[in-house]
Amino acid sequence: MSKVYLVGAGPGDPDLITIKGRTVLEQSDVVLFDHLATDELLAFAPAHAERIYVGKKKSAHSHTQDEICKLMIDHARQGKTVVRLKGGDPFIFGRGGEEAGALVAAGVPFTIVPGVTSALAAAAYAGIPLTHRAHSSAVVFLTGHEDPNKPDPAIRWEDYAKLGATLCIYMGMKNLETITRRLVAGGLAA
Amino acid sequence: MSKVYLVGAGPGDPDLITIKGRTVLEQSDVVLFDHLATDELLAFAPAHAERIYVGKKKSAHSHTQDEICKLMIDHARQGKTVVRLKGGDPFIFGRGGEEAGALVAAGVPFTIVPGVTSALAAAAYAGIPLTHRAHSSAVVFLTGHEDPNKPDPAIRWEDYAKLGATLCIYMGMKNLETITRRLVAGGLAA
Repeated sequence: MSKVYLVGAGPGDPDLITIKGRTVLEQSDVVLFDHLATDELLAFAPAHAERIYVGKKKSAHSHTQDEICKLMIDHARQGKTVVRLKGGDPFIFGRGGEEAGALVAAGVPFTIVPGVTSALAAAAYAGIPLTHRAHSSAVVFLTGHEDPNKPDPAIRWEDYAKLGATLCIYMGMKNLETITRRLVAGGLAA
Repeated sequence: MSKVYLVGAGPGDPDLITIKGRTVLEQSDVVLFDHLATDELLAFAPAHAERIYVGKKKSAHSHTQDEICKLMIDHARQGKTVVRLKGGDPFIFGRGGEEAGALVAAGVPFTIVPGVTSALAAAAYAGIPLTHRAHSSAVVFLTGHEDPNKPDPAIRWEDYAKLGATLCIYMGMKNLETITRRLVAGGLAA
């Protein structure tokens, strides 16, 4: 049996993947990629590598999460080196935890390669420090698109407004109005 | 006048710097580095590049923050390509915000290259997802070593304990006992 690499691709610019991420792509036999993966990133994989799109985009899901996990496991059991290429970092809102859990349950060896999560990259290119000795001693990454089936689903936005921390909201466009209204209700300046 | 790059070196493994980070190191004339920079990382810089240690380690500071900013600015004004190599990500507890501010004030052009911050790397290698659809909708990065001169210095640890978020505490060893006591007082299981 070969191995699965859960690789953080970074925010999109192919130069913002890590050297290790690129190296394992170069050694891959199969790449499972999402809709944010660029052609430049996929070009790091060798010509023989099978490239499988497993993207999800709003309501249009090419594969269920179970199917993605099965693809990883089945290819690894065929002796292949599998790269599961994920936008940003695998463990920040990437369902990497669920995929790692499925690999543990299946007894498939895997390595996680961290990546630059989009909040870090957005801050770098906008020139906005996420923390600052004089202004902010904490930074929070939140999802604006919480799983409605989560046992205790409600992020208490008002509580986050009171922390004095920098808040970075991922996937927040759909609920932007609710989120901003609740942050203002919690005390943030409009 | 040439340029300054504020580069996130990642968590230490030289393979966890971004491709862009390595590329600008390869083009550098001067590298200002901290005590966490490894020889392997510094070896990416060309032979002619001047390597200047500007590290701070507890009470042993080789340079003040003002001196570090002055070194960046002076070398850039001499037409050199300067890499300020910082552990992790420049904008997460790295004083990158202060250094960027000094460059803006001096009119020196600069680019920020984001990096893998240590919480992401630690989670990847420990196999602990920082967020998870079923368990945690937010992750917080906090400093355990707050500037005592900050106007409103007190992180209210009890409030963070109540969020239901994953907490990642940087530089928390010195204050570990106080931090854990206050988090338990806020409701976290001991």
